[in-house]
Formats: sequence, structure tokens, C-alpha cells
Amino acid sequence: MESRFKIFSDPVHGFISVPKNVILDLIESAEVQRLRRIRQLGMGHMVFPGAEHSRFGHALGAMALMQDALATLVEKGTPVSPEEHTAALAAALLHDIGHGPFSHTLEHDLMPGVPHEAMSRALIMRLNEHAGGRLDLTLRIFDGTYERSFFHALVSGQLDVDRLDYLRRDSFYTGVVEGEVGVQRLIKTLRVEPTAGGADSHLVVESKGIYAVENFLLSRRLMYGQVYLHKTVLAGDAVLRAALHRVRAHLANHKADFADTCAPALLYFLTHTITLELLSRTAIQHAFCALDDADILTSLKRWMLHDDPVLADLSQRFINRRFPGITFLDAPPDEETRHAWLSRAAEWLVSEKLAPQSTAYHDAHYYVTFGHSRTARYDPRWGAIRIRERDGRVREFSKTSEYARVAAYPDAGISPYVVHPKTIGTTGG
Amino acid sequence: MESRFKIFSDPVHGFISVPKNVILDLIESAEVQRLRRIRQLGMGHMVFPGAEHSRFGHALGAMALMQDALATLVEKGTPVSPEEHTAALAAALLHDIGHGPFSHTLEHDLMPGVPHEAMSRALIMRLNEHAGGRLDLTLRIFDGTYERSFFHALVSGQLDVDRLDYLRRDSFYTGVVEGEVGVQRLIKTLRVEPTAGGADSHLVVESKGIYAVENFLLSRRLMYGQVYLHKTVLAGDAVLRAALHRVRAHLANHKADFADTCAPALLYFLTHTITLELLSRTAIQHAFCALDDADILTSLKRWMLHDDPVLADLSQRFINRRFPGITFLDAPPDEETRHAWLSRAAEWLVSEKLAPQSTAYHDAHYYVTFGHSRTARYDPRWGAIRIRERDGRVREFSKTSEYARVAAYPDAGISPYVVHPKTIGTTGG
Amino acid sequence: MESRFKIFSDPVHGFISVPKNVILDLIESAEVQRLRRIRQLGMGHMVFPGAEHSRFGHALGAMALMQDALATLVEKGTPVSPEEHTAALAAALLHDIGHGPFSHTLEHDLMPGVPHEAMSRALIMRLNEHAGGRLDLTLRIFDGTYERSFFHALVSGQLDVDRLDYLRRDSFYTGVVEGEVGVQRLIKTLRVEPTAGGADSHLVVESKGIYAVENFLLSRRLMYGQVYLHKTVLAGDAVLRAALHRVRAHLANHKADFADTCAPALLYFLTHTITLELLSRTAIQHAFCALDDADILTSLKRWMLHDDPVLADLSQRFINRRFPGITFLDAPPDEETRHAWLSRAAEWLVSEKLAPQSTAYHDAHYYVTFGHSRTARYDPRWGAIRIRERDGRVREFSKTSEYARVAAYPDAGISPYVVHPKTIGTTGG
Amino acid sequence: MESRFKIFSDPVHGFISVPKNVILDLIESAEVQRLRRIRQLGMGHMVFPGAEHSRFGHALGAMALMQDALATLVEKGTPVSPEEHTAALAAALLHDIGHGPFSHTLEHDLMPGVPHEAMSRALIMRLNEHAGGRLDLTLRIFDGTYERSFFHALVSGQLDVDRLDYLRRDSFYTGVVEGEVGVQRLIKTLRVEPTAGGADSHLVVESKGIYAVENFLLSRRLMYGQVYLHKTVLAGDAVLRAALHRVRAHLANHKADFADTCAPALLYFLTHTITLELLSRTAIQHAFCALDDADILTSLKRWMLHDDPVLADLSQRFINRRFPGITFLDAPPDEETRHAWLSRAAEWLVSEKLAPQSTAYHDAHYYVTFGHSRTARYDPRWGAIRIRERDGRVREFSKTSEYARVAAYPDAGISPYVVHPKTIGTTGG
Repeated sequence: MESRFKIFSDPVHGFISVPKNVILDLIESAEVQRLRRIRQLGMGHMVFPGAEHSRFGHALGAMALMQDALATLVEKGTPVSPEEHTAALAAALLHDIGHGPFSHTLEHDLMPGVPHEAMSRALIMRLNEHAGGRLDLTLRIFDGTYERSFFHALVSGQLDVDRLDYLRRDSFYTGVVEGEVGVQRLIKTLRVEPTAGGADSHLVVESKGIYAVENFLLSRRLMYGQVYLHKTVLAGDAVLRAALHRVRAHLANHKADFADTCAPALLYFLTHTITLELLSRTAIQHAFCALDDADILTSLKRWMLHDDPVLADLSQRFINRRFPGITFLDAPPDEETRHAWLSRAAEWLVSEKLAPQSTAYHDAHYYVTFGHSRTARYDPRWGAIRIRERDGRVREFSKTSEYARVAAYPDAGISPYVVHPKTIGTTGG
Repeated sequence: MESRFKIFSDPVHGFISVPKNVILDLIESAEVQRLRRIRQLGMGHMVFPGAEHSRFGHALGAMALMQDALATLVEKGTPVSPEEHTAALAAALLHDIGHGPFSHTLEHDLMPGVPHEAMSRALIMRLNEHAGGRLDLTLRIFDGTYERSFFHALVSGQLDVDRLDYLRRDSFYTGVVEGEVGVQRLIKTLRVEPTAGGADSHLVVESKGIYAVENFLLSRRLMYGQVYLHKTVLAGDAVLRAALHRVRAHLANHKADFADTCAPALLYFLTHTITLELLSRTAIQHAFCALDDADILTSLKRWMLHDDPVLADLSQRFINRRFPGITFLDAPPDEETRHAWLSRAAEWLVSEKLAPQSTAYHDAHYYVTFGHSRTARYDPRWGAIRIRERDGRVREFSKTSEYARVAAYPDAGISPYVVHPKTIGTTGG
Repeated sequence: MESRFKIFSDPVHGFISVPKNVILDLIESAEVQRLRRIRQLGMGHMVFPGAEHSRFGHALGAMALMQDALATLVEKGTPVSPEEHTAALAAALLHDIGHGPFSHTLEHDLMPGVPHEAMSRALIMRLNEHAGGRLDLTLRIFDGTYERSFFHALVSGQLDVDRLDYLRRDSFYTGVVEGEVGVQRLIKTLRVEPTAGGADSHLVVESKGIYAVENFLLSRRLMYGQVYLHKTVLAGDAVLRAALHRVRAHLANHKADFADTCAPALLYFLTHTITLELLSRTAIQHAFCALDDADILTSLKRWMLHDDPVLADLSQRFINRRFPGITFLDAPPDEETRHAWLSRAAEWLVSEKLAPQSTAYHDAHYYVTFGHSRTARYDPRWGAIRIRERDGRVREFSKTSEYARVAAYPDAGISPYVVHPKTIGTTGG
Repeated sequence: MESRFKIFSDPVHGFISVPKNVILDLIESAEVQRLRRIRQLGMGHMVFPGAEHSRFGHALGAMALMQDALATLVEKGTPVSPEEHTAALAAALLHDIGHGPFSHTLEHDLMPGVPHEAMSRALIMRLNEHAGGRLDLTLRIFDGTYERSFFHALVSGQLDVDRLDYLRRDSFYTGVVEGEVGVQRLIKTLRVEPTAGGADSHLVVESKGIYAVENFLLSRRLMYGQVYLHKTVLAGDAVLRAALHRVRAHLANHKADFADTCAPALLYFLTHTITLELLSRTAIQHAFCALDDADILTSLKRWMLHDDPVLADLSQRFINRRFPGITFLDAPPDEETRHAWLSRAAEWLVSEKLAPQSTAYHDAHYYVTFGHSRTARYDPRWGAIRIRERDGRVREFSKTSEYARVAAYPDAGISPYVVHPKTIGTTGG
């Protein structure tokens, strides 16, 4: 008998078994293969050189963890039908399919106002059409409209397979070993509990898993602080966005022709305004699926030679990793502070011959970026973690007797910062 | 040229290079070789089967991390003389040499009132005599009387190589991967700062290491909750202690002869009262060095066949891992609660024919143990962690601006519990 | 629903699920718990300090790999009944239960002529009686009399779960990372093929696993060369054996009384001759089960103070790791060579005041040990590895077309050596 | 004091310390940063999804291993001056800088007849000019003209840091754990021995490292068999090359205009013939440095829509991972066999409407690729591994007494294969 599984070797989870059914078909689709060309951490590998992994491995890994989670639940007496099993695996595999090039870095720049989840949903719809409706249940699980709500919680909840995989995976590839989550321990403490009325059922964590939950929340916090919001990452993000904004500005003003130097799919997004309502259009989906990290990189390499010195400079800074400085501010910058930074940058632009006096202050906006970072914390309002205590009662994590105070993990709060040319940093602190 | 190092293969840190000087001599001494026969986690391996590692590997590992820490400090401009280097390595190697069989489990039972640190000091004195005074500086570092106080902080401080090694090592061997501390990252952020007056210098952590510190504190907390204070560990500890108490009681009452069934070195400690003042005596040191886990195990195996049914029962429960139950209490038990548990246990002893009615309540004290566990937390009063902020100022960790609230890690507080025969647990909760 | 499994955290394989049936009962038996007190590598941890793991973890690990192997076979269409599943798990768990203290080191000294497999069988019989015959099928699998012979091959064959676990585990704990076997990859290539006649079925490896087989054979070879037959291990083994031989000689000559200083169970084996036929006797089984590493260690520590200087010296050499030298010989030593070594050792004994001139040559036999080591190699006569080639034909590994020459892995052959007092080594080469 | 090192977190080797001198300058050069955009394993990640790592991490890792190797040699008494140290680090860092997009896959297609080593040398020359001659010694080490020849051996020899890093790194990222080389163990056995005449000195391995050498050779063999020459990798390589050949053919015949759809730097190489003599030209170096994986990917995505159905088909097969089949042949294919495969492919092209009858046989050459793979083996003629035996004599590895036969590792020999459309494979075997 032929094996019913195709085996993938994954350095993070070991061997991953993919059922040779619609799941394998999905993996072989162009939409999922495209994830191989989108790095999981945007430009994170430019700070952590090992973290060059793509969203493809993450999609596979989330699916593998879904298999583990369902096996645990079934073992504890929660029935899962073959249809539900396949639908849940598909939901885990496809949950992030709507990520575009450089993942989160460009999420709000390519299609302002369109979160990647919305595009994921549009692409699952598209794949469902190709698959003749075999993803109907997947869509309901993804949307949270399926009555057995723990499936949705496993795909999109505080302890979903997305987070469990990406924290584990990013810790592995960055070498930030202390961010390692005890994924298998956590999964083994999962359980499904009927709700009070009995109409629904919740995903809960057995009380013995409370340390694993705590560890999970703190690993997430640590990974945000050490990796996702690393200051060099924030600085690199700013350069990449500035270059794209510059091109957009040129295009809006018809100041330059980018037909030759910009990948067509990228040009599409730089010249169209995409809204949530339009995502179901084939043309948009088509352009989106044609776009990946390579288009951004080849365009930037062309723009390094562009006539516009600002665009050329920004592009080479990104490609050759000559990132600007970043300074954290004590308070959100007021008008005066902003003006001071921009003025200093304008002077610098003139001295560097990147801009004439007349446009320097305007151009300085491409070199000075005000932003703020915010560490992830657990807030039950955004999705509760439920603990089943030894007495059988289910409590929201922050309400558990012994660990009531754990919910008070310090919120680093909003940390305002400014990204700026390195040489103006010392006087600008 | 012959290599100046002997290489040990350590699964935790990789290859460890031991200088072929007094350090190698110390490792080859009977006192240090004895650590091979003392398990690091007492009876922890009976809960985590992989954690069968001894204190020998920990001693080597702490020495290896001292090498790494000194290399970092030297690289940042803090001079370390060859004498200081060797003395610090010796101090790291020997810091825990005073641990007796089953490490912490029996620490307060073999020699009540004598902490292992005091015995470590006595044995370092002894080794220093053998070594002709070559450990003078080691002793000063160990004692904290050496003027360059950062050496002492590396041996016995909040971020000492002892803790860094044991957390990393115990996480490795237990398989509790989420307890992994980013040891190398933490070490790389260490630095020595002169104090205000300049008379001394402090060990500080650079500000970029603040996440590593946080991770360290939380890994420690997690390891306490998941491993060191695991409820089965507490239950197993109680059985072992009860068996020794029973023998002590027999010996005090001359009720039985243990010359045949008790290892001589163990008998010494069960029949003598050791105080801090006596530790310098050769006889005590000799008896102590002759004692290890094997003596406890062979004695227990003999006592499994003892005439006293209580001693026989306790011994076989430990050897064959038939541990009692443990119940956490909502409050420290008052007289009435204690009496209730003891009464139930007495009944059980009679029904099990382990004790006659007349002594059952008395004997129940060997089966019912009241205790409390306390999770480790950071408290600057017990040793400060100092952070060197970006502006050059040094602040105690709990006073750092951004992470002020981190110091408020929830203290699980004192958790009272009772260890008791399993069958009386359900009614006794 | 309560989970049907008890979970063990294993640093090698991760979480191990033990079914709460007869398998868990077996694990909780005194016979299996005893394996916690027997180190897997005898005195190997005195060379590789991390390798302090016991046979208990190995037994659990072999059982876990059996679960994996059966899951793979079932997935490929080979039916396995629940009874077979449990019996195979029990066989994997118990396969090495007959190992005595210090495992292979003392295997041929405690009970000359009795291989550990014979004692394993006797103890499985004993456990089967306690279990009311529930291990009947386990015994047949262990014996190789069960008609579905692949079960036996998984317990005791070239690619059995015993080897797969111990190579992986010993590589892990010694830190000899290059000995790592791709256990999961190998298991995933297993398959059951009907034999020509169809009466039986064989365990085969799919052709894509041929590299995994090669890697397995070479990792085994490397582990033998680097670990199991490490020269310091051979030297340490010789000291331990010599001490026991010395005690045996005293006992045979009634020269000394060991009742006080030798653990009773050990004394039993030093004063009785055990043969294969006697293994079914309860007294022998009882004494065997009472014996573990701790008895050897405590006895040696007592013997360090014995009146016989040779016994005292040998004992302290083992306890304090002052091992002798070892010299490899170009050829098996002839009488003259042996005599020369012994004479030099006799002189040394006199000079060290360990023996008077009159007995020195006789006593030298406890200090000079001639032996030979032999690296493990694949020989189809001792159990074939069968490869299922792409064309469906099954060939014995050494007959496979592409890898015919692989079977010719160099046999290091018999390497004769002599263990001897270090100081006489240089002239004795 | 500021640290003299910049620290990189590498998941393979842990923390890597880069000296803040010319080494850091080189890492920050555009030439080295470009390696971030070239995958180490060409399209290997399409078979091993975790293996998405670039040549940048490999360059860093090789440099880190050079640090380790030099530290070992210095510790054993071989002097290394600061200049030599820096030069050797630079040589390790830059040794592979001449790799183009998709590494080995396209090495012989972009610039036929120009091995990547020649381009590495040209780029080191270029960097040396920028660095004002600071790489003079690096060049001599790279070329093998420096009199202390062990430096060259460490950069380009049987046991060079290149191989040690890539085997370890590729094993890590592919998850092929059994390919793990004991890199640190091997490095610790290195030593420099003066040659007979004394004019030069050789890199040798101490005799205790002979198992490490054996493991190294066999890990390499295993990685070739399991990873580098994996049949899906060979099939994927063939598609990519065929697409580029198709474009080259169009360009040669002026059949199509690729100015719009082909990255300029790629077009340069598809329209110019580069020879070894021309490598010093700035234009070629400039074009080469502008080229990376992204250019190939964006071009292929454009060509998926090309008018030429063959080019469009080949391009989408690569991008969407619809790879052809591969069949190993019993013997190198003769004319008849080749013709048979091509004829079947031609029929298939017609039936798929990819080509008209008139050109089908010609076009079939883009779908049928004959090749052969050859496993790496140790051959002293291509660079000797020298073993320093216990008696001090140095022997070439294959001449060592005990392991003479190891040199006879089976050479899988030349394995001819044909890559072909999947559907014609079954009849074509």
C-alpha cells in the first residue's frame, strides 16, 4: 500500500506528514507555493542572519501543529470527524496566505486599510472555487461561524497554531533560544470543555499547563522585544517604506516613468487604491499572487540607479544595509520636536547633495520617520485564555486564583521613536 | 607543544577546556570526583527520567561559564590577572562542593542548621591545605572579601555562574525546553563598572541585556514551578526524609541496631549532631566526603526488609517509587486540620497493618508531612541585579525606567501543602 | 475523559506517551524501577561526564520508538491488533531488563556464562506470572517464536528499537553529536513485506532509506570507536573487574570476611555459581533484582579501607578515577610478552609496597589485563538488513546493486591491548 | 571600553564575534551583502523547505570556524600574527563571494567555463583595491602562494572551513540530522606539523581525530546522496537551466525581445560570452554584483506569460514547482536511447500543444536532459588529509595502518539519469 502521506523534513518540528488529499493539492497550488518567496520576518534576516525562512515553512508548521492539537483533543474524548480534521488542517495551512511581500513590513503600505486576514479570506474563497467547494467548512472555521468554536480558536485565538508555530520557528531561526516555547507541552494540556448552556464548547488549558501558558506569553513578549521590534528592524522597515512612498509620490505626480524599472505586479499596487470591497476581484487577486519579495528587491536594485537622488539613496541604503539610526523618545513628539528633526535632516540632505534647499524640508520626510512600537501583551478582551482548574471550573487566565497577578505583565506601553539619518542622531537625542 | 588543556565533552555547553594546572588537580581530587555520585536534582530524576545528571557536570559547567564571563569582561577592558583567572575558575568549580547526598532534599536533615555553603567552605579550606595555599584567593572570592567584588558576584550573586549553569543544565536534562536560559547572550551583556567612590567595581548588565535578565528570572520561576517544586518531587522528598527520621528515632531510642544495614558514613551523621563550629574537624569532613547517594540507596534497600513495618514500608515506597499523594491547602493548616489529617492517616496505618492502634497516631507523623513551597523571585534585598542604561547610569533592575513593573513578578507566595497516603487524599482535600 | 496515557518528558525523544494499561503497570514494577539505578554505559560517565543516564530511560525510549515503528507500518497497510501492539511495546520495554549493575562491564563477571538476554527472559517470565499471563505474546515476540516475525525483528534485529534508541541516546548524553542516527527517518522507511512463500513477512527498508541504513551502520561504528571502546573506558572496566576478582579470590580462599563490607545481594553472586539452568529460581531472581550500581559503589568505598592493600588500592583507583594506562599491541600478546608485562607490574607492586616480593607476580594479574576490542560491523550472518528496491525486489543490504561495496565497511578487526599501571607503560610499549 | 567585536546571532554556531576592523568593513560591503540574496542550496529549499538559508550566513560561519581553528593551533604552539589572523578570516569570509544566483545550479550556465573560484578571486582583487591593499595577504592565502601553506589548507583543502561550515549548516537547515559533522571535535584535533625539510608546514589531524575524519567524509557522502544530488533537486535544476537556455536561444536568433522582461544584469550574461581573461573588467564585475536570485525569479515570473509556449511552460513549472520526472539509467545513454526519449517527449509536446509537429523534436531538448551525478568521495590526489599518528609520524589518511580500508569508501560512481516529462516516464524506464 502506498503511504497516505507525503513527508516533509522540517528542521523545527522534524518530519511533517501531509495527507495526500486536498491538503496536498493546496500545498501544490500556485497560491501556497508563492509563500516560498515571501520571508516570514520581512527584513528580519538583515538583523538575524539565520532568519531567512519563508512563510511556506510556517504554513506547513501550523498545519503540523493542528494535527498534534487535534490528536490530543481526540485522545481526551472530543470527537473530530474526518471532514472537520481536513478542514481544520486546511485552515491552519491557509491562515496567512494573504501576506504580501515582506510580510508585516509592507502590510499597511501596499494596500492601506486592508489587513492581511482579509486577503487571506479572499484567496481561500478563490481556492475554494477551484476546489469545487471542498473548503466550505474551512471558511466557516476561518470566519468563526462554525458552531464548534474551538476549531476557530485553534486557527485564530490566543493559543492558536499560528502563534505557536511562528514563535517556535522564529526562535529557532534567529538563534534566540530563550524565546523557545514549549509547544508540545502546551498542546498536550489542551482540552475542549462544553460551555455552560452546552450549545458550544471552548478550548481550555488544563491547570497543569498554567506554567506553559505563562511561558508562552513571556516568550512572545521576549520575541517582540528582542526580534520583531528590534530597533534595527524598525530602522530597516522605515527605509523600505520610504522608498515605496517616494515612488508612489512620483507616480501620483507623473514625475517619472516606472514601467521599465518596477515589476508590473508591484506597479499595479502603487497605482491602484485597493479597498476591502474590491478584494474579490480577480484582477486584484491575480496581481497580488504575482507579487513577492523578489519584485521588491529587483525594483530597488533598479532604483539604485534612478535619476532621483533621494530614491536612489533610499534604495541603496536598503539593498546594501546602510540603515539609518533610531532614537527612542521620552514622549510622543509634538509639532516642535518633529519640526526640529525634519529641519536637521533637511540640512543634512543639502550637505549630502541629496536635495536642493528648496525641497530639502519636504524630502526630509523620507528620512525622518516617527513611529511607536508596542509590545504584545495578554489582554483577555482580545481573546481569552481559559484555564480549567483542578476543581473543574473554567476561569479566564487573568482570573485564576494562584496567578491572578500574572495578567499584570508589564505593558511596555507605547514607545515612541524616530528613525533618522545616523549623523544627526547625536545632537537630536 | 602539548595542549595546555584537557577537553571534556559536555552535552550542554559542548567542549569544555580545563587548564592543566591546579584546576585539573582539583577536578581529579577525591572531593570533586565524589560529586559524580551525587545527583544534581536529588530525586528529581524519578519525575523527569532524563534528569539523572550529577553535581560533577554542574561543577564543570559553572567553571566553563566562568571562563566565558571572564573572557567577555577582559574583552571590554577589565583586566584579569592569571592568578585571578585561576582563582575564579576554582571558586566556580568548588562553589557547591559541600552538597551531600540527594543535594537539597537531605540538606536540612543530615546536618540540621548547616547550610551546604558552610560545608563547601570547609572543604575548600581542606583542599587549600592540600594545595599549599594555592586557593587563598579562591577563598577570598568565595567569601566575598576580595576587594574586586565582581568576582564574588560571578560566583554567588543574582547572575552567578552557578545559577546560569544549573538552570540551563536542568532544563536540558529534564526536557523542559521552555526553561532554557539564553546563557551566552546574558554573559555577553556583562560588564564591570567602577562604583561611585571608585573603591570597588560592580558587575552590571548592559541595557541591551534587559530582556535576557527578564528571561533569566522567568526561566528560574518556571523551573521552580515545573521542576524543582513539582508536586511529585515534593512527595518523594517527604518519603525519603521520613525514612531517615524513622531511623534517627530508632537510634535515639536504641530501639534497633543499624550497624549492619546502614552505611557507616551515613550512620555517623544519624548519630552525631553537627554544628557549624565543628565543620573544620577532620573526622566530620572525612565522613562527609565518604557519603553519597549510593549509601542512601543501599541503606534503603536493606531497610525494605527491616522488622519495623513503618521503616520497611517507607523504604520500599521510595525505592519502588510508590509515592504518597500531595494536596495543596488554601491556608496554612491550623491545629485542627493537622489533627484531622493525622487521624485519618492513623486509621489508614491500622487498616494497612503498618501500626497498632496504640502507636498509629504517633506513626502517622511519618506519613503526613506539612510543608510549603515558595517560588523563587527576584528581590533586590537578596542581591541586586544592576543595569547600565544607555545614558551610562547604573540602576538596580527593579528601578529601571522602562521595566519598573517587571520587578513585580507575581510571587506565588507561600503555598502550604500536605503529603499524605494516597487513599486518604480524596476525603482530605 | 481522563487521558489514556501517562506522559513522560524525555530529553531525547520529547514527550513519551505510556498507555495506562499493562505497560504502565510494568513501568511501575520494582523490576523496571530498578533500571533507574543501573547506568546505561557502565562507567562511561567517568569519561563522558554527561552520560550518567540509566537503563530506565533507554527502556522507555525503546518502547516509544516501537510505537513510532508500528504507527508507520500500520499507515502502510500492515495490520497490528491491539494485543500485538501492547505485546510489542512490552517486549521493547523489557528487552534489557536482565542487565545487572554497570551493564556490560560486569555482565561476564557477576554471572559468567549467563548473557543478559537470558536473565531478561527469566524476569519477563516472572513478570508474566505476576501479570496472569498477559505477557504470553510478549514472550513469543521476544523469543522469536511468534509467526509474524517482524515483531521480533523490531525487538531484536539489525534495526531494532534497542539499537536505534541506545545509539541516539548515548550520542545525546555523551555530546558526541556526530554519532546521531536519523532515527525518525529510518523508522519512516520501514515496511513489512510478505516472504516468497507467504507464510511469514519480513521487516524491510524502502530503497529511499538506504542512506539512512548506511548512516546507522556508520554511527554505530563511530560510537563504538569513540565511546563504547574508548580506551579510558576499557581501562576503567579493567579496574572494576579486578577489584571484584580480588574479592572473589578472597572468598574462595576464605581469606577474608566480607559480610560487613559487601552488599548482601552482591555477596550472593560472588559466592554462588549461576548457570543458565538456574535462572528460573526465585532466590536468584530475587538477589538479582536487589542488586544495582549503588551496591557496587558502596562496597568499593568500604574496600578502600580493606586490610588487603591490593583490594584497597584497586577500589580507590576506581572510586577516585585514578585509572591505569592502556597500550594497544601490534599483535595478540604471546607468553613472553605477557610475562614481561606481568614482571614489570610485579616490580612496581613491590616498589609501591602493594605486595611483597613473594606474591607480587601473582598479584600483578590484578593490575595487568590483556584484552581485545572489536568494532561492531554489519555482517548479514548475524541478522540481515533487507532493502526493498524500487523494482519491488527485496535484497539483503550487502547485495544491493548500487551499494554492494558498502558491506565492506572496514572491520578494524581485533585490536589487542593491555591495561597496566601507568608508570610501566612507557617502557612497555 | 567599547567592545572590539560586533556580535551576530547564528542558529548554527551560536554567537559569532566579528572584529571591528577590515573584517567588519568587508561584511558591510555591497559585494558581501549581496550574498544575502543568493540561496546556499540553489533550489534545494524546494525539496527541503527549511533550507532557505543564503550564502551570507555560510560566509560568516566559515569565518567563525577559522577563528576556532586558529585558536586551536595557537593553543598548541603555532604562532599566528595579527596580520595573518585577519587575512585568514578575510579569506574564509570571501572564499565563495564569486557565487552567482542559485549557486551551483547556474554556475556553468551563466558563465560557461568560468568556475566560481575565478570570480571569487576577481572580486577579492576588487575589494583589495577599495581596501588599499589590505587584502594582499588574503589573496596569497587564497591563491596558495603564501609560504605558511596551512592557511591555504584551512581555506581550500580537504578539511577547510568552507566544507566544515556548509556540511554542518546544510544539515541543520534541511533537518537531515544524521549528516551532522562534529565540527568542533574535528577542529580541536587540528595541528600544524613542520614538513621534512622544514621549509613549510602542514595541517594535520591528530590520531585521536581519525574517527572525526571518517565521520566527516561519510557525512559529506550522506549529504550528497540525501540532499545535494536528491533526485527532485536534479529535476528542478534541469527546468531552471532549460528556461535560461531557451531565452539564450531566442536571443541568439533575435527571435524575441527580452529587454522588458529580463533583469538587465541577467540579460548581460545571456548576451555576452564571459571568459576567464575578462573577469578583471569592471563592467563584468559590476553586472555580476548586480545579479542575484531575485532577478532570476522575477524574470521567470514574467516569462510565465511569454508568447513562446515552451518558455512559458518551463517558467511556470519552476515557479510553481511542477517539476519533471527523473529516471536513473543502467548505463550512459547511447544515441538510440537518447533518440527514443526525445521522440516520446516530442509526441508529448505536440499532444500538450506546447509545440507544433515541425519543431517538436527540437523543442524536446528543453524537456529531456541527460546528466549524471557523482557522489563526493575522498581521493588523496585532490588534496590529502594527513594524520599524525601516536608515534609522531604523519601519514596520508588512506595510508594509515588501522584504517587503510577506509579510503575505499564505495564510490557510487557515475550515475547517469534522464530528466523528462513525468507522463512519459513510465514507458521510458
